[in-house]
This record gives sequence, C-alpha cells and structure tokens, in this order.
Amino acid sequence: MRHEERRARVLLSRLAEPYDERVQQVVAEHGVEAVVGYALRDGRAPGGVDLARLATRVERARSVDDERIAGRLGARILVPGDPEWPDDLDQLEHPPWCLWVAGPGDLAALAERSVAVVGARASTAYGDHVTAGLCVDLVARGFTVVSGAAFGIDATAHRATLSADGSTVAVLAGGVDVPYPRANTELIDRIRRTGALVSETPPGGAPARMRFLARNRIIAGVARGTVVVEAGLRSGARSTMKYARDLGRPVMAVPGSVESLLSQGSHAEIRMGAELITDGAEVAELVGRIGDDLAPPKHGPVQVADGLPEDLRRVWQWLRPRSSSVVDEVMARSGLSLRETLGALRQLEHQGLAEELLDGWQRRPTGAR
Amino acid sequence: MRHEERRARVLLSRLAEPYDERVQQVVAEHGVEAVVGYALRDGRAPGGVDLARLATRVERARSVDDERIAGRLGARILVPGDPEWPDDLDQLEHPPWCLWVAGPGDLAALAERSVAVVGARASTAYGDHVTAGLCVDLVARGFTVVSGAAFGIDATAHRATLSADGSTVAVLAGGVDVPYPRANTELIDRIRRTGALVSETPPGGAPARMRFLARNRIIAGVARGTVVVEAGLRSGARSTMKYARDLGRPVMAVPGSVESLLSQGSHAEIRMGAELITDGAEVAELVGRIGDDLAPPKHGPVQVADGLPEDLRRVWQWLRPRSSSVVDEVMARSGLSLRETLGALRQLEHQGLAEELLDGWQRRPTGAR
Repeated sequence: MRHEERRARVLLSRLAEPYDERVQQVVAEHGVEAVVGYALRDGRAPGGVDLARLATRVERARSVDDERIAGRLGARILVPGDPEWPDDLDQLEHPPWCLWVAGPGDLAALAERSVAVVGARASTAYGDHVTAGLCVDLVARGFTVVSGAAFGIDATAHRATLSADGSTVAVLAGGVDVPYPRANTELIDRIRRTGALVSETPPGGAPARMRFLARNRIIAGVARGTVVVEAGLRSGARSTMKYARDLGRPVMAVPGSVESLLSQGSHAEIRMGAELITDGAEVAELVGRIGDDLAPPKHGPVQVADGLPEDLRRVWQWLRPRSSSVVDEVMARSGLSLRETLGALRQLEHQGLAEELLDGWQRRPTGAR
Repeated sequence: MRHEERRARVLLSRLAEPYDERVQQVVAEHGVEAVVGYALRDGRAPGGVDLARLATRVERARSVDDERIAGRLGARILVPGDPEWPDDLDQLEHPPWCLWVAGPGDLAALAERSVAVVGARASTAYGDHVTAGLCVDLVARGFTVVSGAAFGIDATAHRATLSADGSTVAVLAGGVDVPYPRANTELIDRIRRTGALVSETPPGGAPARMRFLARNRIIAGVARGTVVVEAGLRSGARSTMKYARDLGRPVMAVPGSVESLLSQGSHAEIRMGAELITDGAEVAELVGRIGDDLAPPKHGPVQVADGLPEDLRRVWQWLRPRSSSVVDEVMARSGLSLRETLGALRQLEHQGLAEELLDGWQRRPTGAR
C-alpha cells in the first residue's frame, strides 16, 4: 500500500469509526485519501455526502504523529497489504481502517492457526473450568487463542493459554495503551509481552460502548473459528458468533445445563446451526488443517465387546476383522442356536460392529461405528 | 386382516423373534400363514430356507390359547390393520408380528400426539430433574409420554407424567404380565391402570437381553419423536434414537455438562444431527402439529432496550415500530451526533432491532430478532 494511503488510513482512524456508513461509502467509491481531501476542502464529498463532522477534527488529527506514538509505545500500525495484516479482515462488512498491534507475535502468523474463545463476563465456575481445559487443549494442538480480555470467559481463556505457554491475542475496544478492564491490566501487560494486543482504536482512545461490539468483528475476523463457552441470550459474545458466521467461519458452542441462564446463549447458537463441541479435538477438526486434525470418534472403553449383552459378545468375539465367517461357523463356535446367532449378528450390524458381506460376516473396524 | 392371518401372527410370535431375517424373508414372500404351514410340514420353505427350528415349537405353541390368555390378563392382541395398531410400526425394518396391549388407553390415539423420553438407567440428579420438568411440560401441551419403564430416565419420565395426570405408554421387553425391572412393578401397574403397557413378547416371555434392544424400535415407532435426556456413549437409549432417525422421526437431545459422562451420548447425538432441545416448547415445535406448536423465540427480558448500551437505547427509543424516521429526526431527538446516531442505527440493525427502509429507519418487531 502506498505511503500516502497508509497515512490517510491512520489519519482516518482518528476521524471516523469504521462502521460510519457514509465514510465507508466515500472510501469505497473514491479511496481513503479522497475522504481526507474532501473533509479538508469543504466537508462535501461527491454525491452530497456530508463529511463536515470530520473536517473539524482533521486539523487536530494531523497534528498527531501516530507513527511516533506507535514507536514510543512499542507498537506498530498495520494497514491492508502489510505482511502482518490478517487478510481475512478485508472480508468484514466494515474492515478496520488500520490496526495498532503491540507485542512480539506476528499477527498474520498467529491468526493462521487460531481460535477465538469468548463468552460471558459473569461466567460460572463450570464455564471457567471448561474454558481453561479447552484452551490448554488448543495450545497443545498448536492453536493461538484469540479473545477480548474482558472479565469472565475471555480472561480465563487468556490466562489458561498463558499458563500453558501458549500464544494468545487480545483484541481491545480502547487503544492498545488503555488496558481495560483496569483489573485485568496485569493480564493485558502479559499478553503484550508474549503475544499480541490488537486494536483499531488509536492510542489513548477510550473503550467506548459501541467499540465493544465493533471490536467483536475483529476477534471474529482474526480467528479461524469462534467458540462461545457460556453466554446469556443477549451476550455480546453472540455478536462475535454472528460476525464469524457472516464470514463463513466455523461457529461452535459448548453446551451446559439447560437450567443455567449462561448456557442459554450457547444452546440458542447450537439451535441456529453452531456446532456443539465438547473438547479441543472437536474444535481442531472444524478449524484446523484438513487431514491433520480429525477428532477421534468418541467411544466408550476401548474394548468394544465390553458392555455388550452376553449373546452379542459371544458372537462378536468369533468374528474376524478382515475376513468373513459363515453363519454356521459362528454359530458352532458361539454355542448359540441359529436363531440366537442370527439375531446377535443383526444386532451387531445395527450397532455398527459387524457387517454382512457376500460370503459371510465380519467385524467392522471400531472407528466405523 | 383376516382371522387366519391374525391367528398365524400370534402363533408366529411364539415361534420366532421379529428380527429373525430368515423368517422375515419367508413372511415377505409367502405371508405369515405360509411360514407356519412350512414349519409344520417339513421345516423347509421355498428357496431352501430352513425353518426346522420353528417346527419343534409349533405343536407346543398351538396348544396355547393366546386370545384366552389375553382375556384373562385384561389385555388385547393387536395386528396390523387393527384400528388401534399404530400404522407407523409397519415402517420398521422388522415390524412386530403382533402387539400385546394392556391398559385403558387406545394405543393409536395415544401415539397420535406422543413423544418418547428415554435415557440412561444410571441417571444423574440433573437428568432426573430435567426429565421431570420436560414431561410435565409435555403433558400440559397434550402429549403422551412413551418410554421403557427402565430405571433412571425412563422411570422418571413415566412418574412425572403420571404425577401431572398425563398419559403414558410403557413398552416392555418381556410380556405385559412380566413387570421388569421388578422394583418398578408398582409403577408399571399404575401405567397399566391409566395408560398402556405394550409388548411384542407373548405373556410369560422373559425380558431377555436381545429383547431390550428390539423393544427400543417399538418405542421409536410408536412415538412421533424421541428425546434422549441423558445417555452414555453406548447407552441403549441411543439405539432408540437410531430407530427414530431411520423412521424419519424428529430426534432430539437435552444438553448437559461436557464433564458428565451421561451427557456424552446426548452431545454425540446432537453432533450427529439430533436437535438440541431445552424445554417442552421446543419439542412440541418439532413433533407437534404444524402451526399449533411454534415455540416462542427465546429472548432476554421483555423490554428490548434493557441492557443495550446507552447510545443504542437512546436511538432505539425514538424509533417507531410501524413508520420510519429520517436519520436527522432521530439524531435531533437522541441528542447524539450524526456519526453516533448512524453508528447506533447500524448496531441496532446488526442486532435485529432496527431496519433501514427506503425513507428512513424503524424498529423491527421483537419477534423478528
């Protein structure tokens, strides 16, 4: 991206929120630089779009040297086209003008294999426990955990990831130099030192309310998939799910008690089509590289015959996995009558444990159940 | 159905299990009466099917007067075509030869609006609690609850239904005069007095192991849909789900803690496509009459504006539900800047609370969220 456009984007981020439709419209039609030009001239863009509000701020914004501020904060400013810019952000309905990033992690590299883990601020012990287990599991599978540094599920996700020496990315609603919530300052500082802090809000910018919802689209856009662990029906975490869904990313939810208000949002998401997931393997299967991350099918104990009724076990143990046996043979070995043997074979077939071939019966591989 | 075929079916039920493929094949090709004839003659059916095993039992079976036994037990014998026969049973891969029914309920009428509620024998307090609440809710919606009278979820489903003066059907693995498990004898007797006991096993027949799995197909075939509340990964309740799925009936599962072994089966079912349900309204929506049973969408508190960020609330309250407002008007009333107003409107739109029309903005009906 040319230097001028880069400067214009950074400047624009001090003038207008990226969800300002009028500005987005002018940018789409005339480019970022034109917006600043129109605002400086007379506040009128072609088509009668009123940019007067921006004009009053341009002078002040131009007096700010954001590159220098970034340098002082140990941060960097990314714009579309930069190697570290996560490409998928451009697919958002309202892409950020630019991103401030602080921390040693390369954002594009972290995003490559990442999962957003989000949820309620007022999480329960169950939600925190599941979040921690899930994140430790995801770290072991090489995933970066993306979240919003909020109280509850977000903070637990970051903390568990750090405790497992994993990489974590926090997307903030305010500037990268404005830790919020304040009580999480130490956590946010740790993320800055080990992973990446990300914000579209310029340094010094307050975590204003609307920015929390807007921030969620960046979480969804950076991560390859989004998991909601616990959420009320109207939780902000559900907006992250909506953004991820709009981007065509896997959306996943952890179930819980139907009696918990904080699982209602998760259950509603599953009913809307989110995948129910119970562990990191199932997340990896949806989000990971195809072929690398197939979750093992959930079985009971390894020994398949355990727990089968006596008749079925007696028949099953005489079946071979890769060559078939005729019914008479199975009957003779099992000591059952023909009727019992046939019944047992049909039941085993019904349970996916045996299959009938042209010349007899054989065991089905356990994984095929 | 002709009297001869009826007699042959009842007789056959004492000779062969309905999942005996060889007998099913001869029945399909030559009819029920022919099977008995071949067995009596020389034990050979056309095509070389060996019915010799049946022959040895025919004489003994013919000495039993099942109609008289039924009369003595206060039971009746149903065969396909009887008004009380639930037609959908004929769609099973292995339909029962006949059914013994005891109790005042008309089986076809009860089946008309019915849900199977099944699950683990070793249920948890959570599973029992949810089962009871669900069944009471289903009774209030006019549903019959079908289950298997086993320990755990089954027994809780029957008990909760009876306690709410609802109708319940128990499908037994043994004969209708063989209450099993014995500890549930009193419960089973109560179902016999108020609803219906059903079995394909002739009176006196033991609840043999294979019959429990076979019984599950009748539960699935009688009920219009099946809910599993709690189940281990290899629970028999999952076979009921499989039969219901094969019949094209709604299959539903109640979620729970991902840390509970007894929710693993439910979660696996949801991952395989079963609908996650959390209450009776959601069950009724899937199983009930179209149009009568739409579940209300799950909302937070009734007042939509509650819990919205201040800016959004200020904008939302000046929107009208059925006529639109231009942005300038909303901006003037809300006291926000144009940027803030537009941002809030977009956020409200994103949350489904407002929509942009050709001539301005209006509230969206709450139900449309």
